[in-house]
Amino acid sequence: MIFTTVKINAQQMDHQVMPLPKEVVAGPGEFIINSKLKPRIEGSERLIKAVDRFYNVLSKKTGIFYNLRDWSDDDSANFEIIAEEKAPVELGIDESYSLKITNDKIQIKAKTDIGAMYALQTLLQLTESNEKGYFFKSVEIFDAPRFPWRGLMLDVSRHFMPVAAVKRQLDLMHTMKMNVFHWHLSDDQGWRIESDSFPLLTEKASDGKFYTKEQIHEIVKYADDLGIRVIPEFDVPGHATAILTAYPKLASENNANYTIERHAGIFDPTLDPTKEKTYNFIHILFNEMALLFPDKYFHIGGDENEGKHWDRDPEIIAFKEKKGFDNHELQAWFNSRLNKSLVDAGKIMMGWDEILHKDLIDSNPVIHSWRGEDGIIKSIDNDLRVIRSHGFYIDLMQSTSYHYFMDPVPQSLIDNEKAKKLIFGGEATMWSELVDQNSVDSRIWPRSAAIAEVFWSERNKLDGENLFQRLDKISSHLELNGSEHISNRHKIIRRYTENQQDFSDLLYFNDLMAPYRFYHRNPKGTLYSMLSPLNQWADACIADPVESRKFSNAVKNYIANQNPEDLQKLENHFKKWAELEDLINSLIQKSPQLDSLRQVSQSFKIAGEEGLKLLDFLSGKIILSDAEMISMSERIHGLKFKGGELVLKHFPS
Amino acid sequence: MIFTTVKINAQQMDHQVMPLPKEVVAGPGEFIINSKLKPRIEGSERLIKAVDRFYNVLSKKTGIFYNLRDWSDDDSANFEIIAEEKAPVELGIDESYSLKITNDKIQIKAKTDIGAMYALQTLLQLTESNEKGYFFKSVEIFDAPRFPWRGLMLDVSRHFMPVAAVKRQLDLMHTMKMNVFHWHLSDDQGWRIESDSFPLLTEKASDGKFYTKEQIHEIVKYADDLGIRVIPEFDVPGHATAILTAYPKLASENNANYTIERHAGIFDPTLDPTKEKTYNFIHILFNEMALLFPDKYFHIGGDENEGKHWDRDPEIIAFKEKKGFDNHELQAWFNSRLNKSLVDAGKIMMGWDEILHKDLIDSNPVIHSWRGEDGIIKSIDNDLRVIRSHGFYIDLMQSTSYHYFMDPVPQSLIDNEKAKKLIFGGEATMWSELVDQNSVDSRIWPRSAAIAEVFWSERNKLDGENLFQRLDKISSHLELNGSEHISNRHKIIRRYTENQQDFSDLLYFNDLMAPYRFYHRNPKGTLYSMLSPLNQWADACIADPVESRKFSNAVKNYIANQNPEDLQKLENHFKKWAELEDLINSLIQKSPQLDSLRQVSQSFKIAGEEGLKLLDFLSGKIILSDAEMISMSERIHGLKFKGGELVLKHFPS
Repeated sequence: MIFTTVKINAQQMDHQVMPLPKEVVAGPGEFIINSKLKPRIEGSERLIKAVDRFYNVLSKKTGIFYNLRDWSDDDSANFEIIAEEKAPVELGIDESYSLKITNDKIQIKAKTDIGAMYALQTLLQLTESNEKGYFFKSVEIFDAPRFPWRGLMLDVSRHFMPVAAVKRQLDLMHTMKMNVFHWHLSDDQGWRIESDSFPLLTEKASDGKFYTKEQIHEIVKYADDLGIRVIPEFDVPGHATAILTAYPKLASENNANYTIERHAGIFDPTLDPTKEKTYNFIHILFNEMALLFPDKYFHIGGDENEGKHWDRDPEIIAFKEKKGFDNHELQAWFNSRLNKSLVDAGKIMMGWDEILHKDLIDSNPVIHSWRGEDGIIKSIDNDLRVIRSHGFYIDLMQSTSYHYFMDPVPQSLIDNEKAKKLIFGGEATMWSELVDQNSVDSRIWPRSAAIAEVFWSERNKLDGENLFQRLDKISSHLELNGSEHISNRHKIIRRYTENQQDFSDLLYFNDLMAPYRFYHRNPKGTLYSMLSPLNQWADACIADPVESRKFSNAVKNYIANQNPEDLQKLENHFKKWAELEDLINSLIQKSPQLDSLRQVSQSFKIAGEEGLKLLDFLSGKIILSDAEMISMSERIHGLKFKGGELVLKHFPS
Repeated sequence: MIFTTVKINAQQMDHQVMPLPKEVVAGPGEFIINSKLKPRIEGSERLIKAVDRFYNVLSKKTGIFYNLRDWSDDDSANFEIIAEEKAPVELGIDESYSLKITNDKIQIKAKTDIGAMYALQTLLQLTESNEKGYFFKSVEIFDAPRFPWRGLMLDVSRHFMPVAAVKRQLDLMHTMKMNVFHWHLSDDQGWRIESDSFPLLTEKASDGKFYTKEQIHEIVKYADDLGIRVIPEFDVPGHATAILTAYPKLASENNANYTIERHAGIFDPTLDPTKEKTYNFIHILFNEMALLFPDKYFHIGGDENEGKHWDRDPEIIAFKEKKGFDNHELQAWFNSRLNKSLVDAGKIMMGWDEILHKDLIDSNPVIHSWRGEDGIIKSIDNDLRVIRSHGFYIDLMQSTSYHYFMDPVPQSLIDNEKAKKLIFGGEATMWSELVDQNSVDSRIWPRSAAIAEVFWSERNKLDGENLFQRLDKISSHLELNGSEHISNRHKIIRRYTENQQDFSDLLYFNDLMAPYRFYHRNPKGTLYSMLSPLNQWADACIADPVESRKFSNAVKNYIANQNPEDLQKLENHFKKWAELEDLINSLIQKSPQLDSLRQVSQSFKIAGEEGLKLLDFLSGKIILSDAEMISMSERIHGLKFKGGELVLKHFPS
């Protein structure tokens, strides 16, 4: 036994892997990576493809050339990859693996090929280097997920995401061991999938932006190769403007004549739950759609139906009276009718919080909880299965820390045995009101890597203290795996400088600010339409801007330790701040859009100048009277750090 | 008449448009761009989509929000776009347009919708800004292309390019008014298109990387919307390893057993031109492929068939003897047989230089000349139509200046009337031995913008002096239109710094060097395989590195004018050079791949230090003896500026 028996924690493994593995035992020495890394594989075709990808990424990372499948089938291999069986891509399969690295051998063992694939991902993240070259440190890892449902939801209705953008997210999800792609395919702003039964859905309600069936097959197959389940969502009875644009006769309003929505919000068009033709339509449509998606779970949306038209149409009112239904009961009745079609199609119904109703409990739906913990608690009370997205709404541009301290299991249920069984996991939700194919990566990544860790790693393993440091590292890894989250930001910044070679000053400025959080950027959903450009300054800003964090850390550290190094850092920041106004003024001629940053840059200038003065005071170079200190404080607190849909992340203290 | 009657040249229009328009007359004043820009359109659905795209790009550029098709149908419109007819997307259509901008109106007129679409592209490039906002200067432009065939060839066999990468090139081509996409779909390294008749082509010879027919339709339709013709190429009888991997019985060698090539080079596997089964195969295959591509022209390759197997197989030798053929005559006979299938399919044969043979002249093929001007001259002598690619091989990483001074018409034919009629234009050729989907943009763009100008603009309009300045500008425009040519380079550079926010120093270093030109990077085609990583330092280097050009210009300017400003520039360069070694040393721990740059960085350090000394001497700060001068010169000339598959672009003089 060459391994030390001391289990080391994540810190000691240099935070190499994300999500954090279950058990990590460091060994002595290291395995040198060179062109002689030769595998022997026992496993499925899917695993073989994964090994191809592994070599491709390793090669890109190290610059080492490998020949195609120059592999071994005997014990001479120094890289064993053994999976006992090919897993079906479905909920609850064994995803565990073990990975052992010694000086002369790497061994991956897993029950399933998907477990082995995760081991390959872990191994890639373990790549280290020194001046002489690349290596893996000796280690023994045993790993398995905490939750079986680790999802990302992507809204392709508000802004359509082409095949390449979807595949990219699948690649990145797999890198972070996420295994559910929830595809929000219809909403008020568009229907995004070819239907033979109802061709008007794409003809009238997609702007020509939709997936053909071949493309759906292509993506489902692609996801299967990555061990990712694909769950489609078709939102009914609300969020149905696109459906009702194509088939207005199904509307709760008589003589409806809709066009797809161009703005964000909650809209009134709603399917008529009292007419048989509605159920015929859904039966045929859902059965057609069900054939495209092998997964058992099928998401019917069900959220935000305010029922305004249900309160207005005489026939619906009469129907409700006859049945003794309120709107929620009517929707439960509607859902239970839908469920028959889903059962016919061999599917399990899943829907947002709002579908939870006592009348639907017999249908045993999966509740996708988004509004708060109440929905989860109620679901558990009713023995219903739950997926949590509340706390994982990445479109709201909250800090990664916020998401990281959320848990699929509410605190009050942490010891509840039913909850342990029924809460399957969670999903990060990427709603696309203010996101398009060119900005989506910087909205999903690297933040969702932290969420992936919440879904995969044991709660007591989580390490919030070094989260951002680890995210910085994973950021490079994600980019190597195809993410555009850095490039897309830089494109925007560069544009304002007319592609100067060195745009680091402007990038620095951008990296001090975050875009408005929650829905403040698009008040009432009407400022932006779905055609508004999403390549503007605010689109380059991220939820956790790096430089403002560095500044804030330097302040905290200085206050704690009075370290002169931190003073030096602060001085560098203040100096840069003092120059921001001139920077903006110099660019504004060619980029008049930067006008919205003028006031902010002026504020930074003053804050920078005052900051420098303060540093001189702290280092004893100058003396400030109390009156001068008060006046400085007033000047700083009077500054405005808002503008251009942005807000300063860390206000200088 | 508000326009001045003085025609101004390109310089006076600030080099705004690329390719340079035919006639430009500046007017007084300007048209302010705001959300009230409202068009009235007379034209095809294709033109309407182009206007949608126009607003999308304008909106991204200016940040102004527009509503969807918030257009006018009466004279209140301030933006008239009128096309008389919808053009078929075929050779020789009218592509001219006129564009008139006054203070209160923009008018586009064209015979065809495609002409009007080009006017929209010109208009986008005319967007200017000052501190107050965006505007178009008043101008009247009449424009039409010099050549009707302005192509880009993309090799998707050596490295497969997914649909998204192809569409991106089509978008960018249209931006530069290029109108032919030549798609090199088969070669020794892979067959890239689904065939129902011969499914083994993709099953055995594509690594699973090929276009489905639906994808071909999708791309052809996409190209049609951009006025771009799509010409497929299926290379026969040589470059046929992929075909013969799938169907070895068609090989000129008995008992052939091939696998697709993983390296670059000229390979021996060749179709057997003496067997009827070969012609049956081609007849069926080409007719199947012909249906996918509406264009009349069909490229059969025909290059680099060295006929080694034709000299070795007894039956082929006997056949040649019987017919009295040498290998070239045999190939001409083969081609004339092929031509029957193409005529059946309604196609016109096109092939590389080598198909030119007196026995094939009756078939009236189009000669795609690549080896030199001889092929063009001979083709004209024989009344054959010609496309030129010699001089436009962008894979060779030559300077854009080199390509810019090439002309589709050889100097010796410049007044030849037949040549004027028969030379249709040219194609830039992007062979992909050392290019993949992630590097291809920086190999094609912005260099091909200069080639597009050669194909579009009148010879006497060309402006080589300000070429690079104009390319810098067009570079931003291309990026706004979706190009990845900058991002892809930066990704590589950033990786070596572990995604530091500021990577400008390393980028500066990269921008001093060019990758090896011609085929020197991959000697004999064997160093790289098709699986080798193409995200390395040399892949970030471009043919015309910006900083080395700036340095070189500063040297030239200083020698010419002794301007102290240039001395300052040189000093900045030298200072940076002196720091490059430390920079590389500081990064090498994490990026041991940079080791190959050590020697170069040392050389730069010495050159920088000596340079600074020289500047001190020039400014009179120090005195250097003759001996010291000689020793300095020797030190500089002894330095090595090669390494890591790179060569310094402009040797410091």
